[in-house]
Amino acid sequence: MKGALSLVQTLVASGVDVCFTNPGTSEIHFVAALDAEPRMRAILGLFEGVVTGAADGYARMAGKPACTLLHLGPGLGNGLANLHNARRARVPLVNIVGEHATYHRALDAPLTSDIEAIASAVSGWMRTSKDAASVAADGAAAVAASYGPPGQVATLILPADTQWEEGGAPAAPVTRPAPVAPDPDRVVAVARALREAGSAGALLMNGAAVSEAGMTLAGRVAATTGARVFTDTFVTRAARGAGRVNGERLPYLGEEAMALLSGTRHLVTVGTKAPVSFFAYPGMPGELTPEGCHVLSLADPSDDGVGALEALVEALDAGSAVPVTEPEERPSLPTGPLRATYVARALAHMLPDNAIVVNEAATQGRPVPGLLAHSAPHDWLDLMGGAIGQGMPAATGAAVACPDRKVISLQADGSGMYTLQALWTQARESLDVTTVVFSNRRYAILEMEYQRVGAGDPSPTTKSLFDLSHPDLDWVGLARSMGVDGVRATTAEELVTGLRRGLEEGGPYLIEAVL
Amino acid sequence: MKGALSLVQTLVASGVDVCFTNPGTSEIHFVAALDAEPRMRAILGLFEGVVTGAADGYARMAGKPACTLLHLGPGLGNGLANLHNARRARVPLVNIVGEHATYHRALDAPLTSDIEAIASAVSGWMRTSKDAASVAADGAAAVAASYGPPGQVATLILPADTQWEEGGAPAAPVTRPAPVAPDPDRVVAVARALREAGSAGALLMNGAAVSEAGMTLAGRVAATTGARVFTDTFVTRAARGAGRVNGERLPYLGEEAMALLSGTRHLVTVGTKAPVSFFAYPGMPGELTPEGCHVLSLADPSDDGVGALEALVEALDAGSAVPVTEPEERPSLPTGPLRATYVARALAHMLPDNAIVVNEAATQGRPVPGLLAHSAPHDWLDLMGGAIGQGMPAATGAAVACPDRKVISLQADGSGMYTLQALWTQARESLDVTTVVFSNRRYAILEMEYQRVGAGDPSPTTKSLFDLSHPDLDWVGLARSMGVDGVRATTAEELVTGLRRGLEEGGPYLIEAVL
Repeated sequence: MKGALSLVQTLVASGVDVCFTNPGTSEIHFVAALDAEPRMRAILGLFEGVVTGAADGYARMAGKPACTLLHLGPGLGNGLANLHNARRARVPLVNIVGEHATYHRALDAPLTSDIEAIASAVSGWMRTSKDAASVAADGAAAVAASYGPPGQVATLILPADTQWEEGGAPAAPVTRPAPVAPDPDRVVAVARALREAGSAGALLMNGAAVSEAGMTLAGRVAATTGARVFTDTFVTRAARGAGRVNGERLPYLGEEAMALLSGTRHLVTVGTKAPVSFFAYPGMPGELTPEGCHVLSLADPSDDGVGALEALVEALDAGSAVPVTEPEERPSLPTGPLRATYVARALAHMLPDNAIVVNEAATQGRPVPGLLAHSAPHDWLDLMGGAIGQGMPAATGAAVACPDRKVISLQADGSGMYTLQALWTQARESLDVTTVVFSNRRYAILEMEYQRVGAGDPSPTTKSLFDLSHPDLDWVGLARSMGVDGVRATTAEELVTGLRRGLEEGGPYLIEAVL
Repeated sequence: MKGALSLVQTLVASGVDVCFTNPGTSEIHFVAALDAEPRMRAILGLFEGVVTGAADGYARMAGKPACTLLHLGPGLGNGLANLHNARRARVPLVNIVGEHATYHRALDAPLTSDIEAIASAVSGWMRTSKDAASVAADGAAAVAASYGPPGQVATLILPADTQWEEGGAPAAPVTRPAPVAPDPDRVVAVARALREAGSAGALLMNGAAVSEAGMTLAGRVAATTGARVFTDTFVTRAARGAGRVNGERLPYLGEEAMALLSGTRHLVTVGTKAPVSFFAYPGMPGELTPEGCHVLSLADPSDDGVGALEALVEALDAGSAVPVTEPEERPSLPTGPLRATYVARALAHMLPDNAIVVNEAATQGRPVPGLLAHSAPHDWLDLMGGAIGQGMPAATGAAVACPDRKVISLQADGSGMYTLQALWTQARESLDVTTVVFSNRRYAILEMEYQRVGAGDPSPTTKSLFDLSHPDLDWVGLARSMGVDGVRATTAEELVTGLRRGLEEGGPYLIEAVL
């Protein structure tokens, strides 16, 4: 059989049965192979940033990789920012990049570029297939590599002739590897430190550890030792809401994070590392661990965070401790002219059970996680790599992974403009995504950062670089023009009506909250 | 002074006074320096693909570089496809990428990535600044490097502390280098070959050689020797239209290009290289030069193509030869239900003098260059690197470079969706760009390539990957939602009315030609 078909069959047999793509001529034989293997679901994105961001969101919810199919170096470049985010999220992702036929590269045709150099910046594993006979094994190796641990972007570069030549044969399917057992020495050391530290002890969590199982275990540790439970500012997929241990998010601003951690003598990391500030600022520290605080790793990102917490609970004899969970406290519905906090209030009032909340709301979304902690149980997904334009694509991928769950996409307007094409894929695939655009019509975070870095007061010229008005963006118009219905809200009542429409009916819907 | 200000002052003194940007926190001090140096015009793009594509279009028309200002590795990634196109266009471009402060990199904060690896794929020159004292000299070196020859992307990576620290001082300004004199031996050899070959001789031109001066000289060579005059399929900036030597474009399809070149015994390249096919196809050759044809380079892309043609004309004593120019033959206006060819006809009927035509019309735009050859004189700009999503950004940059000229942006719908955010910048800057979207609602080129690579007939599933309907895109709605007015045309009459509105009034306007 052709190399392409052997690859597609191997991927499907390994559980990789969703392909987010925007293909080109050099990937046409892969596309043709889909005709012979209908178990692979191919989903078109109108821009590669949608494709790779969807693969990130999919992997977080499905717990397994999707594959991408990208068109040469430029297609990879277009998808690079969301591959960067996926790398930071440590999700498994099989990133397939078409390439010119092996013998065509030397001719330096217009689309020729150094794909490996570009891919190296985001890939934990990378291979360029040599021929049709080896491409299936390369695909299996890519799936295996994507699982890590920790999960990573595995990039398979696929010359056109390795797809179209005969001589391929499916490779043995790959399964997800078992988690690595926790290190007993670390468990003992952490148990001793937390027992000794009492309320001066703390857990800092991310990755699998912020699942419901992981947070419940952390809650038992806290109940037994007095330790505080923190999560990173941005979490891959956190089980949050009433009746659960939510932990406390480290604030984005370094000085606030340091104030919160102040007094901690033993900081135990689970699935993450010691906290650092997002950016450097003149005269401010980059490492946020308080002076004199001892950092212990219970589980590195590559370790089994939940297993390590189970061992810790056992070592502390905390199995019957009752964790402190969040009470349900839904706010009343807001009324009157719209304010940013009203989105949080309305959503916390109305949130259905078991929703997936994808957060790229930036500055205007700050009140949301605090209020949702006391609303319905939900999964919460953050942008992990700081590269904006991941939210709507990730919501798209999450909805593909979980067709029976409501996805709520909280989207800052400036970031949303990076990959607005995601709305079209939501419409085409009838995905159940309710998007709220926080339309404050500026890069508010840059206005804030301008002050924080000590640059003084911006001139009108400089201010215009942070400004998204002149002209205003019409998000409802953009969405409708891509097949997604929506409504503009300038009052709390319009917001509530729009949210209700989005949450009660299926399919995609968008609310532009004009702030 | 701060490093950032020393850099901005050096750029401006070197003639680099337009900065296309989407900045972030790590570039805030560069932004702040703009307040102290108002001669630098900063133009915001809502996505980095707009920023880098605009810098490409600007450089083609201004003949000098703009600078970009991009946010770390992800911002560079978002702009990478259009930097690839700029690399292939051999335009000068000063690509400035912000980076974490030098001492912050080791902390591996979320936005940290290997910027140099990514930039290496598109940059002919690259440097990471070390401190505030050296950053101005680095900027001057980047400007000098961007000129080549040939022109290239010069990437300056700018850690945040090199911007905010004191100790900077402006560096000596850089000027454009003089062109390299032609090689007399090549001129003699080419003159001899063309004299001998007669009508079996041919010139293949690109770069500066397809300017009005270069094409006129080529026309004299043709009139004297009988040689044919070809241009590459895609040209950087060609002076075309009635009264000019237009040459014959090599067709995109390899088999058609080979048929056209058949019988050529001496192929003389001027500012380009021997032709190769865009992609590889099973069983088809990649090199398109006819068997037995001798390829001679009169001027490499790094050489002075116009100067070499002047020397050739002198060697052939062809200075008084009268070149064959295109007669003016404007077609009548079309009527009735819209067809793809009607855009070419209506445009050829109405084209104003001295327009700039930016072509990313793909399959549906094929009739345009043939008809425009007999219409008003104009500059014609193609996508050079094959990475779609360059057209509307390049039109934006061309309009910034030439505020007194009408820019016509011919845009395929699938490609246009890659960087549609360019329309917002056109609105904000009131740029005089008339966009025609060829809305055939599919990736027609992929349907064609599917056949050509021998993959058989696509299934409905596969066909859906080439299909942009379900839902249809509403281009007028998209444009209006970003502040650009427009009209949908389903008849020739609507097209003509829309084109007239676009061409006769200033500012941006969009016509969706539904095909």
